[in-house]
Amino acid sequence: MIDAKEVAKHNTSSSCWVIIHNTVYDVTDFLSSHPGGAKAILSLAGQDATEEYDPIHPPGTLEESLQKSQILGPVDPSTIAAVTPTPSLTSSSPEKAPNNGIPPLEEQLNMDDFARTAEQVLSPKAWAYYSSASDDLLTKTHNNTAYRQILLRPRIFKDVREVDTRTIVCSTPIAFPVFVAPAAMARLAHPSGEAGIAEACGREGVLQCVSNNASLKPEQIMAGRVSGAQPAWFQLYVQEDRRKSEALLKRVDVLGFTAVVLTLDAPTPGKREADERVKNAGNTTSATSGEGVQGKGEGGGLGKALFAGTTPSLTWEDVKWLRKHTKLPIILKGLQTHEDAAMAARKEMLELGVTGIILSNHGGRAADTAPPPVYVLMEIRKYAPEVFDKLEVYVDGGIRRGTDAVKALCLGAKAVGIGRSALFGLSGYGVDGVRRVLTILREEIETTMRLLGVYSVGELGLRHINTRALDGLIYQEPQELSVGVIKAKL
Amino acid sequence: MIDAKEVAKHNTSSSCWVIIHNTVYDVTDFLSSHPGGAKAILSLAGQDATEEYDPIHPPGTLEESLQKSQILGPVDPSTIAAVTPTPSLTSSSPEKAPNNGIPPLEEQLNMDDFARTAEQVLSPKAWAYYSSASDDLLTKTHNNTAYRQILLRPRIFKDVREVDTRTIVCSTPIAFPVFVAPAAMARLAHPSGEAGIAEACGREGVLQCVSNNASLKPEQIMAGRVSGAQPAWFQLYVQEDRRKSEALLKRVDVLGFTAVVLTLDAPTPGKREADERVKNAGNTTSATSGEGVQGKGEGGGLGKALFAGTTPSLTWEDVKWLRKHTKLPIILKGLQTHEDAAMAARKEMLELGVTGIILSNHGGRAADTAPPPVYVLMEIRKYAPEVFDKLEVYVDGGIRRGTDAVKALCLGAKAVGIGRSALFGLSGYGVDGVRRVLTILREEIETTMRLLGVYSVGELGLRHINTRALDGLIYQEPQELSVGVIKAKL
Amino acid sequence: MIDAKEVAKHNTSSSCWVIIHNTVYDVTDFLSSHPGGAKAILSLAGQDATEEYDPIHPPGTLEESLQKSQILGPVDPSTIAAVTPTPSLTSSSPEKAPNNGIPPLEEQLNMDDFARTAEQVLSPKAWAYYSSASDDLLTKTHNNTAYRQILLRPRIFKDVREVDTRTIVCSTPIAFPVFVAPAAMARLAHPSGEAGIAEACGREGVLQCVSNNASLKPEQIMAGRVSGAQPAWFQLYVQEDRRKSEALLKRVDVLGFTAVVLTLDAPTPGKREADERVKNAGNTTSATSGEGVQGKGEGGGLGKALFAGTTPSLTWEDVKWLRKHTKLPIILKGLQTHEDAAMAARKEMLELGVTGIILSNHGGRAADTAPPPVYVLMEIRKYAPEVFDKLEVYVDGGIRRGTDAVKALCLGAKAVGIGRSALFGLSGYGVDGVRRVLTILREEIETTMRLLGVYSVGELGLRHINTRALDGLIYQEPQELSVGVIKAKL
Amino acid sequence: MIDAKEVAKHNTSSSCWVIIHNTVYDVTDFLSSHPGGAKAILSLAGQDATEEYDPIHPPGTLEESLQKSQILGPVDPSTIAAVTPTPSLTSSSPEKAPNNGIPPLEEQLNMDDFARTAEQVLSPKAWAYYSSASDDLLTKTHNNTAYRQILLRPRIFKDVREVDTRTIVCSTPIAFPVFVAPAAMARLAHPSGEAGIAEACGREGVLQCVSNNASLKPEQIMAGRVSGAQPAWFQLYVQEDRRKSEALLKRVDVLGFTAVVLTLDAPTPGKREADERVKNAGNTTSATSGEGVQGKGEGGGLGKALFAGTTPSLTWEDVKWLRKHTKLPIILKGLQTHEDAAMAARKEMLELGVTGIILSNHGGRAADTAPPPVYVLMEIRKYAPEVFDKLEVYVDGGIRRGTDAVKALCLGAKAVGIGRSALFGLSGYGVDGVRRVLTILREEIETTMRLLGVYSVGELGLRHINTRALDGLIYQEPQELSVGVIKAKL
Repeated sequence: MIDAKEVAKHNTSSSCWVIIHNTVYDVTDFLSSHPGGAKAILSLAGQDATEEYDPIHPPGTLEESLQKSQILGPVDPSTIAAVTPTPSLTSSSPEKAPNNGIPPLEEQLNMDDFARTAEQVLSPKAWAYYSSASDDLLTKTHNNTAYRQILLRPRIFKDVREVDTRTIVCSTPIAFPVFVAPAAMARLAHPSGEAGIAEACGREGVLQCVSNNASLKPEQIMAGRVSGAQPAWFQLYVQEDRRKSEALLKRVDVLGFTAVVLTLDAPTPGKREADERVKNAGNTTSATSGEGVQGKGEGGGLGKALFAGTTPSLTWEDVKWLRKHTKLPIILKGLQTHEDAAMAARKEMLELGVTGIILSNHGGRAADTAPPPVYVLMEIRKYAPEVFDKLEVYVDGGIRRGTDAVKALCLGAKAVGIGRSALFGLSGYGVDGVRRVLTILREEIETTMRLLGVYSVGELGLRHINTRALDGLIYQEPQELSVGVIKAKL
Repeated sequence: MIDAKEVAKHNTSSSCWVIIHNTVYDVTDFLSSHPGGAKAILSLAGQDATEEYDPIHPPGTLEESLQKSQILGPVDPSTIAAVTPTPSLTSSSPEKAPNNGIPPLEEQLNMDDFARTAEQVLSPKAWAYYSSASDDLLTKTHNNTAYRQILLRPRIFKDVREVDTRTIVCSTPIAFPVFVAPAAMARLAHPSGEAGIAEACGREGVLQCVSNNASLKPEQIMAGRVSGAQPAWFQLYVQEDRRKSEALLKRVDVLGFTAVVLTLDAPTPGKREADERVKNAGNTTSATSGEGVQGKGEGGGLGKALFAGTTPSLTWEDVKWLRKHTKLPIILKGLQTHEDAAMAARKEMLELGVTGIILSNHGGRAADTAPPPVYVLMEIRKYAPEVFDKLEVYVDGGIRRGTDAVKALCLGAKAVGIGRSALFGLSGYGVDGVRRVLTILREEIETTMRLLGVYSVGELGLRHINTRALDGLIYQEPQELSVGVIKAKL
Repeated sequence: MIDAKEVAKHNTSSSCWVIIHNTVYDVTDFLSSHPGGAKAILSLAGQDATEEYDPIHPPGTLEESLQKSQILGPVDPSTIAAVTPTPSLTSSSPEKAPNNGIPPLEEQLNMDDFARTAEQVLSPKAWAYYSSASDDLLTKTHNNTAYRQILLRPRIFKDVREVDTRTIVCSTPIAFPVFVAPAAMARLAHPSGEAGIAEACGREGVLQCVSNNASLKPEQIMAGRVSGAQPAWFQLYVQEDRRKSEALLKRVDVLGFTAVVLTLDAPTPGKREADERVKNAGNTTSATSGEGVQGKGEGGGLGKALFAGTTPSLTWEDVKWLRKHTKLPIILKGLQTHEDAAMAARKEMLELGVTGIILSNHGGRAADTAPPPVYVLMEIRKYAPEVFDKLEVYVDGGIRRGTDAVKALCLGAKAVGIGRSALFGLSGYGVDGVRRVLTILREEIETTMRLLGVYSVGELGLRHINTRALDGLIYQEPQELSVGVIKAKL
Repeated sequence: MIDAKEVAKHNTSSSCWVIIHNTVYDVTDFLSSHPGGAKAILSLAGQDATEEYDPIHPPGTLEESLQKSQILGPVDPSTIAAVTPTPSLTSSSPEKAPNNGIPPLEEQLNMDDFARTAEQVLSPKAWAYYSSASDDLLTKTHNNTAYRQILLRPRIFKDVREVDTRTIVCSTPIAFPVFVAPAAMARLAHPSGEAGIAEACGREGVLQCVSNNASLKPEQIMAGRVSGAQPAWFQLYVQEDRRKSEALLKRVDVLGFTAVVLTLDAPTPGKREADERVKNAGNTTSATSGEGVQGKGEGGGLGKALFAGTTPSLTWEDVKWLRKHTKLPIILKGLQTHEDAAMAARKEMLELGVTGIILSNHGGRAADTAPPPVYVLMEIRKYAPEVFDKLEVYVDGGIRRGTDAVKALCLGAKAVGIGRSALFGLSGYGVDGVRRVLTILREEIETTMRLLGVYSVGELGLRHINTRALDGLIYQEPQELSVGVIKAKL
């Protein structure tokens, strides 16, 4: 057993020891190759780094990176108090949080309740990473308010004793038309991380899309499923080094994923200032790639760091490359215009196995003032309605109520994704929190369908909503404007 | 005389006594059949339960439910102080409220004044029940603001010395075009409850629509009328067990009601979170049905509880059933689309005795983001103006000023209903409060008519209002949009 | 010399003395005939009533009403401290106000500055009377914000060394296109009252429209003019007893007024709640009629009281009556629709000597949600543009900047009226305050004209403004909507 | 060495000494000819006036104005404490500011951060001068919010590894399409003043437009450039005395400026109340003209003072005059209508060497409610799109994000100017602050281009933005409205 005081002496780049889960590691040689940078480690040199290390490194990361001789042995627990504790990155013990002034789970009645609680329970850094969005949060705000401007049109005298929320997405039946959108770093919220989300989705009968930047390895996440038959999608950020992505796709095929989701809305990270203002990013490892992700130079929060290595140069040609390396259906994520929706619905793409598109602005984290997905839905309906017949169209961003989900469905969406809400459910409550988030959404969707007088998801249509408040804001092609000018000049 | 200390010993499910209005009851055998659940009673076992019991059970409820031997006799009042007082459900003595810092009645100048005072005088639970609405209160907010966006068009040089606010609704003359909409549980506001509202309506010459979920029996409410000729409508929630509704309809016919109002906007309760957050619902009995109403499982405020037993499966066919069981004119309540208005105006419906429709979104308590009734008025005028010739159209929701009422009339409504405002008038002030609410509305309507240069209600028309701020928000049928698209594509 | 303690004993309806300006009056016999009611006097019985009496009774009122024997003689000033001082109705000494923390006049840079200072310097009652408007102040708010939504269109390369703000209204040349709109009870602001406004208008070269409810007699106000040639309009509220109005019109002709303005926007008073909430109205005498004005029964602030006696039954026929009793040009005030503007521009009306109309909603004090005057300007331009050729069109309400005035002129107005701003200038600063208010407006108008590249008032036109933000809110005739529906249905 | 106590005695108009940069000057004879007025000097008589004098007089001003005998010699520094220190006009030592609680430069992440810091670091007077705008700041607010209402339309599957922000404006290549707009009195922010801005522009590869009212002489500013080849524009306010402007133009030609920008949006100063409320203007010297600038009479802040001497009578004819006196390309600044844009694009103007126009409302400091430049861009595109082919169109006002700049470019602008942001960068941080402001903008522009899927500035077009939220607010020619009316009447 090693005395923590001894460990404390090795706090320089010449000799750098850290304690993680009561084991002492000599990481001196590893400093230069640490994907998150040497500085991130040195700031914890000679100390117990468990709390900093744990939520952002998949279990086993360290063991894989070090040689046996560098694993020095157990620390003497009676001596560890001597080491100055670092401030906690996540809440020290999320499982106990409800006892620490966090409301009982049954008092969380809606998505906003969960967000408020998450802000309390998460470390400032984790909260900043989850809640931040680009620039002035205009797109995030649009996401959260656009659905609210659409009115419902409830019909009377409909027998709504039984309503059926089930649907089929990408050939997979789900209990209600919701999926958990890919969101990185779930272990910042809770140790169970993305595996906990997997379990919750399984129990509630919905689909999870696993993030390429998850804080657990795909294998670990898939192990969280309730059964081997539980469907899941894998989100891919194509790496500069294509071979890495190809290797990853192989694992994905093997692990039982049911579709590959290619992210296209963030060829470069947006500017998330709240995230940047919280210091000390860079000590982050993406679980999937096994590689460090580091922002270059000044600024750059956790969000920016996670983008490192992602290629900014994908083109439509790359769908062929993707098809070569996976047998799974392909879903394109991040479309924001009717032109791109129509491009995705071309015969060529359908033949390559593109089966769906996710209208998304990356949760407001890419281009600020990008349109909310519901605008894009309406734009496609205006200019390229045939897309809905050729592809399944999904949306994510801003779904906070069952009414939001139902409105998206009325406009043609097959299902809606929730990102932050799933993470907020996980924060402080773990699996049960995510389940409650999903249950609330399902119940709200059911109530909305009943009040609309609708029996099944497939019935929902344009006649159930009034979109006038948004109609005048949907993109109009410039030539139409010119026509107006010509007329005006006559 | 029974010592209260003795009563206090019987505080378990094995032996459960309660004191109500100074009489001791043994309710042990009744626990299992209490419609509001055993738990609700047990929380008051061994105590004086009057304050909890009184406002939500019609007088005589207990006597009807128990055997003589279970009525144990009077409590010794000198001993009752020993029993821990429970927190008051309503203000302990509403009649005295004006002395307790509540403003004198003459200082209440408008509906908002009454709402503010009610928030002060009511128990948190009663306030939550009355004021709450679904989800994010978007529809409630729309209700309260939509009328304000319509402008008036006052004409000059009109002799407005005399203006005549009288009108005839459903063959009944009333003093001005206002009715009290059906709202449940008036005794939460004042012991006189719905009977007090009946008296106030009689004295001010307007119509009351009695709620199916009133806190007094229909007989008790009708007894509150100023004269036997005073008109009143009865609102029906059709029960799962139709025989109960049929029996009720018989009582309604006998009691002198002048119309039956069939509620259709709430086949399932909306999600009223403020109501749900106030705990301990469930110990509620609907006066009309004589049955308990209990929410199933977790959550579910008073609002949700009141819906128990209501059938969610009515269809247009059920109008025939209703006709079979009543001789009264039928009014359909809760229409929110022009399609349903046109359905109600079909020859078949007219022949079944449907004479009117109430455009209503249940005070914002059903589907959140349902349209405010004034939008529906405008939508009917746009797509189905013939409805106004075939049926009397009423609206409720959001009427807070005489100008609001006049605007609804300009758009074709025959009368407007007030719900919360009547209850708020009752809160703290009783009958006089409701009368003042009605007087204020009548005076505001008169002033508005004078300033518009209009002599009688029948004269009010579209030329007296400017609806441009709302025109662009009224539902547009999708095919019209498609036409736009087609043109754009040419 | 009478001891104030002796006066104090005469404080009942049997013997009621008051001290005014150091003279003791026995008003016992007068109590029953006091136009403002006995109660108003009795509340000051036995006391020094100067502060209450002074601002709302024209000088000489008391002497005219009492017999010589009822004027008891001077009070002994050394004894007057014994009388409990009543709270001041106006600031005790407005002239000294600048020393009492009121900003120096040169620091008042705009209308809002004056409003803020007035709120400080005026008694709560006077502030309530001046600032209040109907119901929820929606029209007042519209008045104050509508102009701001119109954009200017400044042109470049214009020689604006000299700009000429002069114009001619109703055949009278004025220095810039502003007049002081009729507003009652100026002596609540300052002892110089409407006469002070007259002087300020004379010195700044603009026109005053004297209120029928001025707190000084027309003779006293006209005496305040800078010269006998100074133009002034007289605003008439026609009385129930027409002979009173006829007598008044005779005085008006004699006194040198240059037009009669017939008020039509307030056949009944609006509901000014702020005014009503300030108690103790009723002790008010209109200077012009010499008669008391008293609200009937409960409620009713100063505003309501001033309407007593006004006839609510004028029709277009009454213009003939008015013509019979005055030789002056007739201006109709309070038009709010294009229909009434067109009615006023009929040949018959022109022949009767109607030369202008004032678009006004009574400063938001009549019908709440009546349109702001700028909407009515735009509505006339849309439906009845010929009116601008036949009549001079003026507006009042919401003019707080030179840009507001210029925009009204661009839309066709000949001049704009300011009401509250003149009173606020008077508050605390007297004549100089009103002059500064006018100077600021003139300078702002000049600056705006220069920045627009416009040399003279006559040049201003539609091309200098962008009204798009308001275009969609201007009244549309219902038949046009129907056409839309018909098309939609085809 | 002169004793400061001796200096202190010379504090009247009979004998007036001041200390500036430790030298004592006898300015008695100069009082009457001080362009800023005698009062401004006398308020500092007998004292150390360095802090007041320095930021608003170009170095050397005093020496040029006085005779040798009036330069009395050095003050004894040990005695100077005796002189009462005046409150600082600028922060006492901007260079040290970061140590005084001002955030480190790297924590300034966006334009708003810089504005907040500037408010802290600047004197109230300097802050008022920089931040103030006309009247109610409506145009300033529009400037800052209009771009935000335009949505972006990001395209996917674009290879954005390299994006090229370079462009050519007025024949000069720049690194990214931003220039520093002419803004006066930069030395209020930092001693390096406009020369510091010149250096920053040079290092970041963009263009500076030097203000006619700069606080340094053009020679001093041009000396700040990184190289003699660094391009710069000179902004001209034509003086009443044309010979002065002609002389200035000669210096401008000689100094290497690359264009002359003729300011047209402010023939008279707007009413900047915040500026006026800060007292003691008038002691200001424009560096360029070498002349004092003094407001006439009461009120008039620094902003108003700077306008003195500017001619308000320019016409299109004066372009010929300008051409006669400069060989440089001519850019017209301050256009706010499509009519003027079309006028500028006439053959005659092109032949006179007008090569560009700057759409500007003078940062909201001229006519309040003038349109934001983006409205004018859209108006030109609507009514005079040919202008974009004939002239380079620039905009300034309200650019606070890279997205703002990109949107302007999509609408046809060649480059965008920043005014206040450059000054705020200078405040507290000097040259480095301005560089960081420019770097942030460049990075935000790059990110926006990448997320739009655009490789080069020239590619940006209407298809990359959705302007629907603004389309309905763009000027419509009145005759079109009339057509609408005619149709409506048929």
